[in-house]
Amino acid sequence: MNELETINLVGYLASFLTTASWWPQFIKTYKTKNVDGLSKGYFGLLSIGLLLWLIYGFLINDWPLIIANIFGGSVCLYVFYQILQQEVKCEKNNQE
Amino acid sequence: MNELETINLVGYLASFLTTASWWPQFIKTYKTKNVDGLSKGYFGLLSIGLLLWLIYGFLINDWPLIIANIFGGSVCLYVFYQILQQEVKCEKNNQE
Repeated sequence: MNELETINLVGYLASFLTTASWWPQFIKTYKTKNVDGLSKGYFGLLSIGLLLWLIYGFLINDWPLIIANIFGGSVCLYVFYQILQQEVKCEKNNQE
Repeated sequence: MNELETINLVGYLASFLTTASWWPQFIKTYKTKNVDGLSKGYFGLLSIGLLLWLIYGFLINDWPLIIANIFGGSVCLYVFYQILQQEVKCEKNNQE
């Protein structure tokens, strides 16, 4: 394996891991709906950021970037939505 | 602004947001030490992934990539460490 191939392999592995990492968080949030330690700011900013990466992927026509960010962005938005849902519930409980 | 400048702007903005998003999660975890809804798999895989992005940044000599991943990687590792700490605490409590 030459140097360029090694560099590409590290890049692909990095891309694969940061994308795959979303799966266990999705499963955990989907099953438990527990969002206690999750930061609204993190998942909110990250959702917008990943959406921009997706747009960037379309602009430079880079399919690995597009696929990774469709997947990561969807899970991130789902978790963000659950955090907002939880907030609404808490507000309702406080009013009652 | 020509097309290339617009594309670059979207890329830089995406990069800035996905990096900045770590800040609120760091503050929340640092202050509350509450890691209830956080997935160990997500922060574990992401830590390795961001470390690989960092190595990739060094290999292709890309400073924005290096800086973003030193920052994101450190926070991610910190949160992952807190999740592991919490698990150790729970195991100790269960044994008592």
